[in-house]
Amino acid sequence: MALRGYGQDCSIARALEVVGERWTLLIVRNAMAGDCRFESLLDSLGIARNVLAQRLNTLVEVGILERVPYRDRPVRHEYRLTVRGRELSPVLAALMQWGDRHCPAEQPPGHLMMHTPCDQPIELVVLCPSCEGPIPGREIVSRPVTRSAPVAGQQSREWTLEHR
Amino acid sequence: MALRGYGQDCSIARALEVVGERWTLLIVRNAMAGDCRFESLLDSLGIARNVLAQRLNTLVEVGILERVPYRDRPVRHEYRLTVRGRELSPVLAALMQWGDRHCPAEQPPGHLMMHTPCDQPIELVVLCPSCEGPIPGREIVSRPVTRSAPVAGQQSREWTLEHR
Repeated sequence: MALRGYGQDCSIARALEVVGERWTLLIVRNAMAGDCRFESLLDSLGIARNVLAQRLNTLVEVGILERVPYRDRPVRHEYRLTVRGRELSPVLAALMQWGDRHCPAEQPPGHLMMHTPCDQPIELVVLCPSCEGPIPGREIVSRPVTRSAPVAGQQSREWTLEHR
Repeated sequence: MALRGYGQDCSIARALEVVGERWTLLIVRNAMAGDCRFESLLDSLGIARNVLAQRLNTLVEVGILERVPYRDRPVRHEYRLTVRGRELSPVLAALMQWGDRHCPAEQPPGHLMMHTPCDQPIELVVLCPSCEGPIPGREIVSRPVTRSAPVAGQQSREWTLEHR
């Protein structure tokens, strides 16, 4: 696996190192729509065969897709999203919402992101613990924080926010 | 402007055509943290000078950044986010949340995304109109829709969802 690093100590950069290559998020988008087979992906994306093969191998290696055989003799695989892969859906939803708003097409959208148990279209919102209701993207800034000592095994944001 | 298209009729693809080039979202991330000047971006990103120049020009052309002079003789510009640019914050927040969870570093995060009026860290959630509370990314699928006739001037998702 030869992912190009950004040399940045940042979650956004680390995420982009994994999913930011050209075509990768569109492959994830298709997998999320159930389009999981090599020839079908090749056809729907119009991507070069070697590029698709490389991207799929990478996505399997980083645990976003898993290779599942659906046929023997010759063996053929599907590339299904793992839980880690499905957790990229907010990234796709955010891109979709920005694209709908700022890169409109003449036709309504061709895909919707749906909550499977309820069969309802999802909505991505940004919340603030002090305000009621969603907040607009333009009221958000990124702020550096001073790092406190790491807590072994921590998953969530349990550290001291000290504004620089 | 020579953005590479994906040839896909999809909001996600159109968004990625604009912001999906290598380094672009990290430039937006830095601008969101107030790091808006060429030499400073060059230094903090470690990016090649010609690549940074090309990305900044593109981001100005597509209306995500605006070039604002901060000095005369010689004139120097800052690259500030427009409203369109700030509306990318959910994309960055989604990448950050996925990166925090799936690409953890040894240290706690170096940046937080904050709601400016309240000075509180934001949270990105995915909502379903039928359920209470946020839903996990793994319960989301992408589903194709049959397009109804376009409604002139529509901004929101006012079209018929017909499952194929």
